[in-house]
Amino acid sequence: MEESLMGDEKTLIEEMARLLEEVRAKKPLVHNITNWVVTNVTANILLAAGASPVMAHAKEEVEEMASIADALVLNIGTLTSYLVESMVLAGKKANFLGVPVILDPVGAGATGLRTDAARKILSEVKVDILRGNSSEISVVAGFGGVSRGVDSGTSALSGERLAFEAAKNLGCVVAVTGKTDYVSDGMDVIAIDNGHELLTRVTGTGCMATSLIGAFAGVAVKGSWETCLKGSSTGANVKKKCLVAAASALAFFGYSAERAGALAKGPGSFQVALFDSVHSMSVNEFKKGARARVLGPSAR
Amino acid sequence: MEESLMGDEKTLIEEMARLLEEVRAKKPLVHNITNWVVTNVTANILLAAGASPVMAHAKEEVEEMASIADALVLNIGTLTSYLVESMVLAGKKANFLGVPVILDPVGAGATGLRTDAARKILSEVKVDILRGNSSEISVVAGFGGVSRGVDSGTSALSGERLAFEAAKNLGCVVAVTGKTDYVSDGMDVIAIDNGHELLTRVTGTGCMATSLIGAFAGVAVKGSWETCLKGSSTGANVKKKCLVAAASALAFFGYSAERAGALAKGPGSFQVALFDSVHSMSVNEFKKGARARVLGPSAR
Amino acid sequence: MEESLMGDEKTLIEEMARLLEEVRAKKPLVHNITNWVVTNVTANILLAAGASPVMAHAKEEVEEMASIADALVLNIGTLTSYLVESMVLAGKKANFLGVPVILDPVGAGATGLRTDAARKILSEVKVDILRGNSSEISVVAGFGGVSRGVDSGTSALSGERLAFEAAKNLGCVVAVTGKTDYVSDGMDVIAIDNGHELLTRVTGTGCMATSLIGAFAGVAVKGSWETCLKGSSTGANVKKKCLVAAASALAFFGYSAERAGALAKGPGSFQVALFDSVHSMSVNEFKKGARARVLGPSAR
Repeated sequence: MEESLMGDEKTLIEEMARLLEEVRAKKPLVHNITNWVVTNVTANILLAAGASPVMAHAKEEVEEMASIADALVLNIGTLTSYLVESMVLAGKKANFLGVPVILDPVGAGATGLRTDAARKILSEVKVDILRGNSSEISVVAGFGGVSRGVDSGTSALSGERLAFEAAKNLGCVVAVTGKTDYVSDGMDVIAIDNGHELLTRVTGTGCMATSLIGAFAGVAVKGSWETCLKGSSTGANVKKKCLVAAASALAFFGYSAERAGALAKGPGSFQVALFDSVHSMSVNEFKKGARARVLGPSAR
Repeated sequence: MEESLMGDEKTLIEEMARLLEEVRAKKPLVHNITNWVVTNVTANILLAAGASPVMAHAKEEVEEMASIADALVLNIGTLTSYLVESMVLAGKKANFLGVPVILDPVGAGATGLRTDAARKILSEVKVDILRGNSSEISVVAGFGGVSRGVDSGTSALSGERLAFEAAKNLGCVVAVTGKTDYVSDGMDVIAIDNGHELLTRVTGTGCMATSLIGAFAGVAVKGSWETCLKGSSTGANVKKKCLVAAASALAFFGYSAERAGALAKGPGSFQVALFDSVHSMSVNEFKKGARARVLGPSAR
Repeated sequence: MEESLMGDEKTLIEEMARLLEEVRAKKPLVHNITNWVVTNVTANILLAAGASPVMAHAKEEVEEMASIADALVLNIGTLTSYLVESMVLAGKKANFLGVPVILDPVGAGATGLRTDAARKILSEVKVDILRGNSSEISVVAGFGGVSRGVDSGTSALSGERLAFEAAKNLGCVVAVTGKTDYVSDGMDVIAIDNGHELLTRVTGTGCMATSLIGAFAGVAVKGSWETCLKGSSTGANVKKKCLVAAASALAFFGYSAERAGALAKGPGSFQVALFDSVHSMSVNEFKKGARARVLGPSAR
């Protein structure tokens, strides 16, 4: 039986910090099947965080690569039908081996291909964590919503409610990122207040966040991490682990961005400082800077 | 009937500044079908300028994406025959909907595939603005010229004459970029004296310029921008709007590069400063720094 | 008959510096068929060094592009079977025309596709220089080894011995990069002690090194460079030229990284400083900073 994290912010932040420590210690191998725009920067953000990225999308090798990975990240930007097939192949293999799968439905709602691809992957692969902006998540979860290219459009639901309802509907952890990020497993919602405005002026920052979720999920789910959260007995509660992993990654990335933003003169220097910040962030600094609130199930 | 811009530098600069203001206010959605090398940096230069980039090349979605865009940018670097087909599909849709189409014939003249692709796109799609270096434009317009990879080779014509003649031959606005940039609609030629030498030591700066032309054309042609240039009655004079849009984008990019160059220690820090500079440039600063000369039709 | 470089460190450093001078003077055109992750940064490192990059992978144009190039760089990251075919086509053309071919077997050993592709290219194309980390080279040369994604795994042999034995087995120059880099032609081994730890925290630095080897080989082999090394009579000793070219590029890149590392606050600012450093390095600075040792054949 699942229990709520309600009232446990302090324990939660401790867990987040422990996960960062594990990422640094274990250097999880994160297999990314991702788009042309962000291959370089998602690999670099993973390296900066201490993880080990690998990019591979050929049908002939994606299953093999997913087999040696600690997490699999699927990202549908600059999609083709070939890539969707590769993602399904890799996703099924990851499912079979217990490798957590993270999906980023870039541009869902903007075109039929994107929307269909996101849904196809969700129907054929057991996705552990779905991360997108509000319009993307809204479209994928079947709540409508208007998308404009790959920027966030609109959703009829608030971020908190959207994350919660989408997680219930889709049966996976859902992260809706925006000014405040909301992550839910369909029971709890964690709100992350870290972030910086310049994240919207650099391409691929959402994709970077998704890849970092892969790194944190890699150590939380596949690694030996034994959660000490209430009600999370070993192995039994993968979903709660994914919830905490996703929230950790978003708080880590958001706080790194805050520190970078303090040094930046614009989006160019911001991106440079962001890699530096992710790399230099100590576990203690993260513990002090992470701002996560647990919004329990009671209100809904 | 078209009239010349001759003698109107001051009005021209005012128009350029107004276009920048519109880019910032309207955040035009620029759909790019572009090459592997520059996807990230062209998206980032558009974001830095205040526009909204989207990258998509799958045949299944390019028409849909072009339909919601304010401008379509086609770039033939790292070309395959698949991408040419996608470009033609997207281009025809854009034509049908009045979305301006900008073509960058990267490497035309270096291989038959590139030259043929540029010509095929020009014959099947109504291209509004063509931007390239002198050898690329010379080859595409049928004036010969020697290319060496993707760097500028040689052309028998001066930049001014090449822009003018190619615009007349091809029936579209042509921008020939180099130390001085020349833009022509086949009647006027605008010379842009902004720029910086380090632009030649960073890959994709030509492609960035082309994508920025997309942003400016997006607000000039598709948006509600009502030109107050002489002889440019609403709707009737798309070509003159494209001429001014292209010149504006090149002056904006070139002046941003000058400011970045003043801070740079080499091509790495230059590129970082370039994104910052594009982002921080105010309309007033642009008005002061833009250096555009109108070379009227009389001399030719 | 080949002679050893043994005891000739001073002459070697002089040769290295002369090659850098030639790269700057001749701007060799380096044709890269490479992966999605590094297209931008490999083009930029070549531009920063003074060379001229071109990226092209379509079957219809790779032979034509290779024909005008001074060097051809093949890199199997984010591989597909299409790209392998393009590489073989380009490689055969380069062989026919005497254009040096450099291969980077990214991720060989991680998947069957990568291992097979590296071997297929080596069997169908005369590769002049092979550069990889120890596990990649070990797998490709048939000495076993364990790879983990694209990071360096393990090899049963030391770097020095691996470079030497692989060069003998494969009949080409082999560069094994790591904390110390070892380059061998199957007779001499040159050890390069330049480098910086942050190179492992930025994606594509190995690929950048490979592309720079292309630039140096481009002027050493195809250009008019007349070696004054003992035993290297004009034209007769391409392999010795390739050995020196590869060692030069690695020392140049490694020393550039040292200078960048002194300014960096993390992997973001390191990468920026790396481009600046490669660009600003004078021939004299390089001569002073390059640390190369010749490990003669006697010990083996």
